Amino acid sequence: MEQKELRQLLKDVANNKIEVEEALLKIKEEPFEDLDFAKIDHHRAIRQGIAEVIYGAGKTPEQIVKIAEAMQKKGQKTILITRMSKEAAVYAQDKLSDFQYDELSKVAIAGKLPKPDGQGKIVVATGGTSDMPVAEEAAKTAEAFGNEVVRLYDVGVAGLHRLTRHMDEIMSANVIIAIAGMEGALASVIGGLADCPVIAVPTSVGYGAAFGGLSALLSMLNSCASGVSVVNIDNGYGAAYQASMINHMGQV
Amino acid sequence: MEQKELRQLLKDVANNKIEVEEALLKIKEEPFEDLDFAKIDHHRAIRQGIAEVIYGAGKTPEQIVKIAEAMQKKGQKTILITRMSKEAAVYAQDKLSDFQYDELSKVAIAGKLPKPDGQGKIVVATGGTSDMPVAEEAAKTAEAFGNEVVRLYDVGVAGLHRLTRHMDEIMSANVIIAIAGMEGALASVIGGLADCPVIAVPTSVGYGAAFGGLSALLSMLNSCASGVSVVNIDNGYGAAYQASMINHMGQV
Amino acid sequence: MEQKELRQLLKDVANNKIEVEEALLKIKEEPFEDLDFAKIDHHRAIRQGIAEVIYGAGKTPEQIVKIAEAMQKKGQKTILITRMSKEAAVYAQDKLSDFQYDELSKVAIAGKLPKPDGQGKIVVATGGTSDMPVAEEAAKTAEAFGNEVVRLYDVGVAGLHRLTRHMDEIMSANVIIAIAGMEGALASVIGGLADCPVIAVPTSVGYGAAFGGLSALLSMLNSCASGVSVVNIDNGYGAAYQASMINHMGQV
Amino acid sequence: MEQKELRQLLKDVANNKIEVEEALLKIKEEPFEDLDFAKIDHHRAIRQGIAEVIYGAGKTPEQIVKIAEAMQKKGQKTILITRMSKEAAVYAQDKLSDFQYDELSKVAIAGKLPKPDGQGKIVVATGGTSDMPVAEEAAKTAEAFGNEVVRLYDVGVAGLHRLTRHMDEIMSANVIIAIAGMEGALASVIGGLADCPVIAVPTSVGYGAAFGGLSALLSMLNSCASGVSVVNIDNGYGAAYQASMINHMGQV
Amino acid sequence: MEQKELRQLLKDVANNKIEVEEALLKIKEEPFEDLDFAKIDHHRAIRQGIAEVIYGAGKTPEQIVKIAEAMQKKGQKTILITRMSKEAAVYAQDKLSDFQYDELSKVAIAGKLPKPDGQGKIVVATGGTSDMPVAEEAAKTAEAFGNEVVRLYDVGVAGLHRLTRHMDEIMSANVIIAIAGMEGALASVIGGLADCPVIAVPTSVGYGAAFGGLSALLSMLNSCASGVSVVNIDNGYGAAYQASMINHMGQV
Amino acid sequence: MEQKELRQLLKDVANNKIEVEEALLKIKEEPFEDLDFAKIDHHRAIRQGIAEVIYGAGKTPEQIVKIAEAMQKKGQKTILITRMSKEAAVYAQDKLSDFQYDELSKVAIAGKLPKPDGQGKIVVATGGTSDMPVAEEAAKTAEAFGNEVVRLYDVGVAGLHRLTRHMDEIMSANVIIAIAGMEGALASVIGGLADCPVIAVPTSVGYGAAFGGLSALLSMLNSCASGVSVVNIDNGYGAAYQASMINHMGQV
Amino acid sequence: MEQKELRQLLKDVANNKIEVEEALLKIKEEPFEDLDFAKIDHHRAIRQGIAEVIYGAGKTPEQIVKIAEAMQKKGQKTILITRMSKEAAVYAQDKLSDFQYDELSKVAIAGKLPKPDGQGKIVVATGGTSDMPVAEEAAKTAEAFGNEVVRLYDVGVAGLHRLTRHMDEIMSANVIIAIAGMEGALASVIGGLADCPVIAVPTSVGYGAAFGGLSALLSMLNSCASGVSVVNIDNGYGAAYQASMINHMGQV
Amino acid sequence: MEQKELRQLLKDVANNKIEVEEALLKIKEEPFEDLDFAKIDHHRAIRQGIAEVIYGAGKTPEQIVKIAEAMQKKGQKTILITRMSKEAAVYAQDKLSDFQYDELSKVAIAGKLPKPDGQGKIVVATGGTSDMPVAEEAAKTAEAFGNEVVRLYDVGVAGLHRLTRHMDEIMSANVIIAIAGMEGALASVIGGLADCPVIAVPTSVGYGAAFGGLSALLSMLNSCASGVSVVNIDNGYGAAYQASMINHMGQV
Repeated sequence: MEQKELRQLLKDVANNKIEVEEALLKIKEEPFEDLDFAKIDHHRAIRQGIAEVIYGAGKTPEQIVKIAEAMQKKGQKTILITRMSKEAAVYAQDKLSDFQYDELSKVAIAGKLPKPDGQGKIVVATGGTSDMPVAEEAAKTAEAFGNEVVRLYDVGVAGLHRLTRHMDEIMSANVIIAIAGMEGALASVIGGLADCPVIAVPTSVGYGAAFGGLSALLSMLNSCASGVSVVNIDNGYGAAYQASMINHMGQV
Repeated sequence: MEQKELRQLLKDVANNKIEVEEALLKIKEEPFEDLDFAKIDHHRAIRQGIAEVIYGAGKTPEQIVKIAEAMQKKGQKTILITRMSKEAAVYAQDKLSDFQYDELSKVAIAGKLPKPDGQGKIVVATGGTSDMPVAEEAAKTAEAFGNEVVRLYDVGVAGLHRLTRHMDEIMSANVIIAIAGMEGALASVIGGLADCPVIAVPTSVGYGAAFGGLSALLSMLNSCASGVSVVNIDNGYGAAYQASMINHMGQV
Repeated sequence: MEQKELRQLLKDVANNKIEVEEALLKIKEEPFEDLDFAKIDHHRAIRQGIAEVIYGAGKTPEQIVKIAEAMQKKGQKTILITRMSKEAAVYAQDKLSDFQYDELSKVAIAGKLPKPDGQGKIVVATGGTSDMPVAEEAAKTAEAFGNEVVRLYDVGVAGLHRLTRHMDEIMSANVIIAIAGMEGALASVIGGLADCPVIAVPTSVGYGAAFGGLSALLSMLNSCASGVSVVNIDNGYGAAYQASMINHMGQV
Repeated sequence: MEQKELRQLLKDVANNKIEVEEALLKIKEEPFEDLDFAKIDHHRAIRQGIAEVIYGAGKTPEQIVKIAEAMQKKGQKTILITRMSKEAAVYAQDKLSDFQYDELSKVAIAGKLPKPDGQGKIVVATGGTSDMPVAEEAAKTAEAFGNEVVRLYDVGVAGLHRLTRHMDEIMSANVIIAIAGMEGALASVIGGLADCPVIAVPTSVGYGAAFGGLSALLSMLNSCASGVSVVNIDNGYGAAYQASMINHMGQV
Repeated sequence: MEQKELRQLLKDVANNKIEVEEALLKIKEEPFEDLDFAKIDHHRAIRQGIAEVIYGAGKTPEQIVKIAEAMQKKGQKTILITRMSKEAAVYAQDKLSDFQYDELSKVAIAGKLPKPDGQGKIVVATGGTSDMPVAEEAAKTAEAFGNEVVRLYDVGVAGLHRLTRHMDEIMSANVIIAIAGMEGALASVIGGLADCPVIAVPTSVGYGAAFGGLSALLSMLNSCASGVSVVNIDNGYGAAYQASMINHMGQV
Repeated sequence: MEQKELRQLLKDVANNKIEVEEALLKIKEEPFEDLDFAKIDHHRAIRQGIAEVIYGAGKTPEQIVKIAEAMQKKGQKTILITRMSKEAAVYAQDKLSDFQYDELSKVAIAGKLPKPDGQGKIVVATGGTSDMPVAEEAAKTAEAFGNEVVRLYDVGVAGLHRLTRHMDEIMSANVIIAIAGMEGALASVIGGLADCPVIAVPTSVGYGAAFGGLSALLSMLNSCASGVSVVNIDNGYGAAYQASMINHMGQV
Repeated sequence: MEQKELRQLLKDVANNKIEVEEALLKIKEEPFEDLDFAKIDHHRAIRQGIAEVIYGAGKTPEQIVKIAEAMQKKGQKTILITRMSKEAAVYAQDKLSDFQYDELSKVAIAGKLPKPDGQGKIVVATGGTSDMPVAEEAAKTAEAFGNEVVRLYDVGVAGLHRLTRHMDEIMSANVIIAIAGMEGALASVIGGLADCPVIAVPTSVGYGAAFGGLSALLSMLNSCASGVSVVNIDNGYGAAYQASMINHMGQV
Repeated sequence: MEQKELRQLLKDVANNKIEVEEALLKIKEEPFEDLDFAKIDHHRAIRQGIAEVIYGAGKTPEQIVKIAEAMQKKGQKTILITRMSKEAAVYAQDKLSDFQYDELSKVAIAGKLPKPDGQGKIVVATGGTSDMPVAEEAAKTAEAFGNEVVRLYDVGVAGLHRLTRHMDEIMSANVIIAIAGMEGALASVIGGLADCPVIAVPTSVGYGAAFGGLSALLSMLNSCASGVSVVNIDNGYGAAYQASMINHMGQV
């Protein structure tokens, strides 16, 4: 309940248009609801076209489709489904309109992508080709949230020229998502080159002492470059969510 | 070397105003210099007034003062010194002009703070009072980089009302730095309430199974709230650096 | 051997109704037996109707059924079987009377649930829907031990209003079992809101730096809220066992 | 704000005894205040005499004394100060009335201990004499919260008879706090003998592969005995807080 | 080459019965051979009847059988095969004489068990029934090496009477192998009761914070009881090997 | 209470020399005492001369001396004090008779060393000279328990000849205590050479990835040599205790 | 772009053979290219015959074959494919000329092995037969890079004579690759015997406290022998790559 | 004992110039001595002038000086002392001739540095100035072993141009020692640029999630660049030892 609603309610009480007990119930039942809607308003009512998100892991194909259908019925134009199994995608294929599935990243989009309306570009860079599933989760998420995305894949630091060849893209980015497994050095090198926030995503790519992404995670947290923050291992979605927030700064 | 300088150099070669060997030397010696200056330009030449930074840890009082004096000689108006020992501060006291030292956070400022010129406010929130050293490092860094800072200290989740009482500050922030030790739950709760990027800083506050900040670090990386990224344990400076970048988005 | 039995035995010796050597043997052979029966007496003989428990993991379907049948033959009215595979449940289906199996939590009940006879209610709360298997193990265990259970699922801290909407249930609980994976912040937030013992159960829900429940476990151990204790990862049964003990405090 | 206050406020609005804007302000400013007071009411207003707590670690002697004096001025009869340095105790000695300090556990009590009013006894048991600092923190906390405490120190499992000799105390306890470092087996053995909730406290006692309490912590979390939950390493206070809650179950 | 052989060789050189170059070759080629045979002599030539061992893991059924056949051809009466897959056992069944396979422990014996010739008995005790695969590996290994074995299974510390009921076996053992997963407390409790060397074997039984046996391993290493040493997780064979050595002390 | 005492007590009851209630009390109060004395009997009453042990860590100089004096008063001829600070030793110097202190290992002996009465020799071997404090704790403990000790220090595997030069001592040992930090390879190499039980002691010697002894500990647990078991990091006392047990096998 | 090319380009500009803008483009587009080719030149153009490498993990059979075919078309005589699945090998079998696949190490060679042209021999030694997959990856890689390889398999330190019997090979090696799992002691022992660089490869062979190679990794990093460095767990390829570099030292 | 000595000894036996028993003793006492001397010969007898090494940690000033004096008496021209405390250096100052001490790296040289006689240069590069203590240990060790050393300090990857400006030194190195703490990315970037073996040294520089060098260690082990191997945290000496071996390849 927003402030003006509450003020109206109190006026109605003052004018005896509503019973005290009924007003009491309304206030008591929604003390936090307001926060909730406040948040949704800020985020969605004003910036039309942004995607709703379904986290597909641990949901049955039927559950996913049911939720998505409900969203589409409410007029939602773009629905992003992450961590969706191929089996679920096959099931959803002809039940959801404008459905597209990317097997590599396990990301699906139901509906049309919104037009990019951020301040600038989000660069998604990876150390190797094996990091692509995470990178595509990030890139597709960013697109579904209304961002222009530039993909720089396989620009790992062992072949520095592959990265520096793309200095233009790096210098013109508004936010960079740096994705790497193994030693995760990409985040530090990009953090040193770029002049914008870098969100680092460690991946579970590697073997042995990579310990499922721990090595890259620690590397990125200890980055000697300023302006680098880190999200969970393999969390392309989370990085893109924050990158989109940053890229829409100053917009209402 | 920027593109227009290189073009001029080549023209001079074409016009025989400069020897081939001399040009060769110039190009060879500075292939990366350009990147470097490019970065400095973006970041500093245009946005006047931002602070230079000295990382005080591991430097002698003499070294710190010498570096700061050189900066002031070059006309630098604000110098931020982090992780400065009290002993170094005492030494610097009357050697650097406009010198102020905060013993709690071990942060010193030499010179005047710039006027805030960011898009909005940066909220620095902590779970407890023991997190204040890290929080003040973050707050003072943000101020030195030209940001308006709102401090919300001791709003930990075990007394939720202390936090929710400040919903206005939280909803009006442009970036939030959430600082907590022990179980680090503050980042998730703020991440759920706020509608802006949250940069989480785990602290080494706690004992036993806190394992020097590991508990809070893992908590924050696994945050169930979207829009949260994490920096190293106790790294208030790093969080403020990125927060300032975000808060100056869209400005040149 | 309880005290009165021992006293009788000694009287019989004094009255020469029994040989010294025979008495010697009796005492020597059962020095610890008494503890054992004492425990069972306290727990079961007096509070009729409580369930016997079979830990199904690592037992064959045949073994489980055989044990349960023996219990039923001895007059046991309620048998709780935890961590029971679907395959074992199918096998047991028509061999055990009043058999019910919940595939999600892998918990089965053979016989009728006892009427709740605890002091108050046990609230079982989870951070997300993925924590439900553990939560149902806890809830069904608590019910089988004679407790009234209130389920509050998916009230994670990233959407605080979902939790605070249930303040009434939380304030009226006698014991709360707080179940969460990922960053495990639920335990701290509930611990801060509630005024009763909170038993926290970390779950292995999550990925990457969740490290199989380690993140939630450390979080919960470091809870800044008072009145929170912790059991093993995914140990819904253990939490419910202790919660039931607490909820039956003061009863004989 | 409690429900009846809110009802009265609305009635006042309906009767125009109070302005709409003023009512708006009142409601808006205290949405969470109610939770807070609700909690305090439950816990303290009704059960008079319980101690207020000051966590001494990281506070200056002056800060501690100032807080305690304020509490005493408000009529608080018992104040518990944990993790208080000897230096702080010396400073507080003649400033706080009825001040007693225990150097071993770093616990101080200002004021008189309340009379025990719990349902039964809390047994505090330790594996060795080195666990005594943690045990005394637990025991003194429990006493300050109005519990009768039975101390069973140095009853580690390597000399089982030392423990079993105290079967009477163990069987008659209402709650047991089992405190041990090294391999932490005490919790399991007591958990197997007793018929009441056991709260286990791992301690940092030990060396080498004890890893600062990690060994005991893992042991206790994996206890094969039912009815055991665990708090943070060396957290005697936390264990006593929950034990006291349990021991006052069913009381208002 | 043993000392007396070397002396003889040198005498032959002195007597010119053998060429210098030939002697040189003999000495050079076997400097370590002697150690090897020395060891085998001590262990096997004198104490007839002990088993040869094949570590089955990572070997094909064909390889195992071929090695065993070669051993039998050389007159080996007992062959112990550990970590043998069921598939390999089926293959070996009618190719090796007197072949017996235990599926639970994956141990096979080809040939007849030697008569026990140790000083006393080896007790193999486990905390639970789930530890039986490791326990049987230990027990069968000990038997194959000529020891009388007493099995005490499922005597975990949560039901202390189950263990203490067997005080006679424990007090009369020459060596005890204590096998437990989860919190591994069995080793400490037995170490405290017994008066002989205890070799502790942590097992990977358990879940969550058992971390694949780490919890039990640390517990056992930190045992507060004297006379306890530890082998690798699930290493029943290793414990039995050393136990057999100890049980044959003083024999040649 | 031993069996014959209990038999006598029962006879007294039968003969009415003692009241039933008095007998009841006697039996009830000492049900575990018997185990205790049984153990002491086996270990001490028969094998005269063995040392009593005081674990000095965490005890004040006064406490140590008081305990030792009490032991000497009871006629104890040898008292072993481990982990005794230099300060405590200075204090004890002229209060305890025949007092000798070794600063390196922090071990003191009060009284005379018993004559070796084990079956054979215990070899104490170390990888480097830095392992000597642990080694001397082991060696002095073994001597205090009546064993002949052979010291082989600084025979680490990086200079294999230093070790193999001592093949005679190794082959003639009854038990070997292998002590090493860093990579802990000594245990495996000795385990491969020797034909007797090897008890491995990892030490905290080393830096960096030695992680306080973890590296050596894991190495030793994973030893590819048979017949090796392991005790806690730096636990020279524990290794010697078990080694002495083994070396006195078969003796009463 | 190498220095002489750049000089020529500038001369062409001076001579107006090339336009300024065209020269600008050439320089700008390849600032790092030069580094790249420089590297390839050093490594390949001069030392003809060395293998190109394809890392097969995570690539489809089709992708591998396509890359290899392209290489062969460009005249590459030897192609090394590591971590190639059997399925991929079957697919590649008749598509690539001179194709050979080793199932154990998952290494394939397409084309002819180059003649060894290193300074000396590379010895590949393993602790056990289970380390052979890693060892063969190392050995085949070394051969594909033009080295003579000596294989010493199953020379683990538990049977020291197996290793020392090969002192000649060890002393005559130019580089040694020491491969071992479990306790990884082989690296230290070889490092102590040999007089050349030793590259240690921990393997994931083992169970329990081997923790997937962690034990061997830490051991090798802490080696008390000088001249030992370490690569990632199971990284036979990486060890061979560096060994080959060392073995070709001083060659152009 | 080398082969020719052994041959001569046997000839003497054959010619009866020496008694059988005396020859027996000689052979028996030195079976491994030969390996030892063999090694020293290769390494030292032929390449005159190389330094002897004393590891100063854990040795008293007196011990260090005594060992060094003995070495100088034997004619050793250069003695390298690592990890030497300032206190020890002050003590040694005027007792050892040509003594020089570097407080930063705790390295001392007694005597004159040998003339560089390696094949090429060893580059010692660090990520930051805080890594200098480790770097100087490496550099001084390399010089003491007869290598020309090029120092590239503070060339961390966050300012890539600082590193690439030194491409000439990097490309002309024979071996590179890459030293870095925090995220340790330097090793990968240099490994990607250089065409020679890179030995990576993680340092304990950093805080929080650097975990005492663990982050850099894992990074370097997982390097995506080929030709990189790793030594223990802070082990500058070890890296230099192997680098010197490589740099003297092919020399006798």
